[in-house]
Amino acid sequence: MNNKILSIINAGSVDISELKAMLSGMNTVDIAEIFEDLDREKIIQLFRVLPKPMAADVFAYVDNDRQQIIIEALADTEIGDIINKLFVDDAVDFIEELPANVVKRVLQNVPPEKRKLINQLLQYPDDSAGSIMTTEYVDLREDATVREAFDAIRNTGPNKETIYTCYVIRRDRILVGVVSAKTLMLARPEDRIGDIMDTNFIFAYTTDDQEVTADQFQKYDLLAMPVVDTEQRLVGIITVDDIMEVIVEESTEDIEKMAALAPSDEPYLKTSIIRLARNRMLWLLVLMLSATITGSIISGFEKGLSVLPVLMAFIPMLMDTSGNAGSQASTLIIRGMAVGEISLNDVLRVLWKEIRVGALCGLGLGLINLVRVYLMSGQDFLLSLTVTLSLFCTILMAKTVGGLLPIFAKRLKIDPAIMAAPLITTIVDAASLIIYFSIAKAILGIV
Amino acid sequence: MNNKILSIINAGSVDISELKAMLSGMNTVDIAEIFEDLDREKIIQLFRVLPKPMAADVFAYVDNDRQQIIIEALADTEIGDIINKLFVDDAVDFIEELPANVVKRVLQNVPPEKRKLINQLLQYPDDSAGSIMTTEYVDLREDATVREAFDAIRNTGPNKETIYTCYVIRRDRILVGVVSAKTLMLARPEDRIGDIMDTNFIFAYTTDDQEVTADQFQKYDLLAMPVVDTEQRLVGIITVDDIMEVIVEESTEDIEKMAALAPSDEPYLKTSIIRLARNRMLWLLVLMLSATITGSIISGFEKGLSVLPVLMAFIPMLMDTSGNAGSQASTLIIRGMAVGEISLNDVLRVLWKEIRVGALCGLGLGLINLVRVYLMSGQDFLLSLTVTLSLFCTILMAKTVGGLLPIFAKRLKIDPAIMAAPLITTIVDAASLIIYFSIAKAILGIV
Repeated sequence: MNNKILSIINAGSVDISELKAMLSGMNTVDIAEIFEDLDREKIIQLFRVLPKPMAADVFAYVDNDRQQIIIEALADTEIGDIINKLFVDDAVDFIEELPANVVKRVLQNVPPEKRKLINQLLQYPDDSAGSIMTTEYVDLREDATVREAFDAIRNTGPNKETIYTCYVIRRDRILVGVVSAKTLMLARPEDRIGDIMDTNFIFAYTTDDQEVTADQFQKYDLLAMPVVDTEQRLVGIITVDDIMEVIVEESTEDIEKMAALAPSDEPYLKTSIIRLARNRMLWLLVLMLSATITGSIISGFEKGLSVLPVLMAFIPMLMDTSGNAGSQASTLIIRGMAVGEISLNDVLRVLWKEIRVGALCGLGLGLINLVRVYLMSGQDFLLSLTVTLSLFCTILMAKTVGGLLPIFAKRLKIDPAIMAAPLITTIVDAASLIIYFSIAKAILGIV
Repeated sequence: MNNKILSIINAGSVDISELKAMLSGMNTVDIAEIFEDLDREKIIQLFRVLPKPMAADVFAYVDNDRQQIIIEALADTEIGDIINKLFVDDAVDFIEELPANVVKRVLQNVPPEKRKLINQLLQYPDDSAGSIMTTEYVDLREDATVREAFDAIRNTGPNKETIYTCYVIRRDRILVGVVSAKTLMLARPEDRIGDIMDTNFIFAYTTDDQEVTADQFQKYDLLAMPVVDTEQRLVGIITVDDIMEVIVEESTEDIEKMAALAPSDEPYLKTSIIRLARNRMLWLLVLMLSATITGSIISGFEKGLSVLPVLMAFIPMLMDTSGNAGSQASTLIIRGMAVGEISLNDVLRVLWKEIRVGALCGLGLGLINLVRVYLMSGQDFLLSLTVTLSLFCTILMAKTVGGLLPIFAKRLKIDPAIMAAPLITTIVDAASLIIYFSIAKAILGIV
């Protein structure tokens, strides 16, 4: 379908009524996708052909760069019309990314009521519940009947983001209960809302962290959640579609932190190289300077290495293996804490588990290594023993350190995700060299 | 609330009617959470106190170990009753984790109809759409009226997982349309379902990958999706609460692969140490053996190193920095591909971006390094130049390799997530040593 429309548009001589008919039968998300493959001129052309009732909906799904192209081509009244038809959260998402002069033009053309709402939502901090909520909800009064509730839904429903949960508020807008469309449908028309509403509902404050809100959605299997201000007045709702985005975003952020990157919301291809470099440089620098410690450990053993230079050849293998062993452990613990499977109180269980897993891995890899080094070193048993014993000890050490550091970080209110591969590697690298050289000294008797 | 109930239960002399009253006002998810802090005896005690209509719902949210404890304490008829009241997807999730002998006992006590369904769902492969669907949906006929639809919802709704999307099927169960509760509420009672239904709906086949299905949910902002068999017959629905779990699961899987771990569904604390060790060992072994290549590069330059042993001290810094630089790039690309921001066609854009970012990072870190080495090496300019130039080149190389390998992996239909930190590190380690030694030879004139 998309390809057919693309070829019609690109053909140049467009039969507008045919195109309109095709578009009106399509899903708005799919139409929005077509815009991604068009140039500026065609984008505007296609947007103008869209059936009026669809335009705002398609606009909400088009990506930011193309939204801007469209807005720049529209007349002031058209802009006002589109923005006014958007759900407030979509309008805010759009406006947040605009250059200041365009923001001004857009807001000037929005009715004052809506403008006030948009400005209010723009002020909530990034990553807060307030920043992802919208204001199109159905509110009811306690003394209304189910019949009246249905009338209210019928009258205002088409413009609401969800009608499947309705919010019961007092005259002062304080939220006192929620009632689902399911409850309404199963109730009698004359039942009072106050009698059938659920007063034991889950809600968020505007300032709550969006990650915490997302956890609540998952825990309680919610489709929507009311958001209140500090006085418990209902100010908006969050719907599950936005929460799915939050879940993906938060995972991405964790993954980025785990790779020693400053987390960023922007898609990779749209991020400038200056910003990409900046997001990476600080951590690279910190880790580079830490790695000089490892270097000075090698320097300290320079004499020993000059006596037996073959020892050098095993350094990368020991460093890499301990780094990998440590980051495996830390990754499992960091993710386990992020999804709530591991808590701060599990530190002893983690320790005991990692010691045993480390011993098992160390034993397995050590044995393979023993045979390999023995055969490859011309059957030098003491050298093989030195390398193998070092490997066993470094894996054991790396697993323990990798398992514990994320938990300690969380105890100290540091984000555990930074205790991932890069930092763990740097730490266990140094430790594994100390282990290696100490064992070499003891077994091979060099200084 | 939870603490209060906990202390009542742990006090021993429980006032059952008081407890019942407290529980009946609580959210079932919160009640399920209380079970986590109880021992076997108290678990059974609390479950028996639960108001009957809540029991199955609480059971669905209790974790697997505790579900098993409860089931073992129940009489056969009670088991049948609980399982019969569970949504089929929850029943399947529960049964999948049971030991075979318990499965048999459970299934024997379930009505044949439900047993057949459960057995059917158990057969869908892990991670398929079929494995996460449930069968409690509202189905309607095209010739029904809106009034009849509401009657159907009222009669069967309480036992359906969602009533907010209804599915329109023909007599042969072929899915022909969907109609949302919103559409129904906004329609006139005498409207025919066939006239108001949406025939342009998104659906999944039972064998579709759950990750693809989750992407569709996000793309189209769905609350539920119908699942059909190869003949387009409706066999189940997937609801958004299960999709949120899939999103988290898939992110976890990616993170695990990126840390060179065999991915696992089991929570860390419940996984046996044997399995943990096995999940980690294979990759550790592969990487350990690859790292010996790096070792042999060092051995090959042994003579040069013995002439100028100070060169050794910079090896860890170069290896670590290039490893980190490469894994930063690969992480961004892997995640970008996972969330659909980067496609296979972007290879040249990624290449050009990484070359420039690499040059910027290399320049920044290189300059800092130049000053540092110059001052610390007793103003040995040639040595400082060697290290700095090597650092610049290795970062540039690492960024390029890290950016491209995940894309090539995907081209070759290999999971890009394995091209993450551990493998990239091993690859760029070797390359960075070759760069280092070549530059050292050229500038310092040693062999």
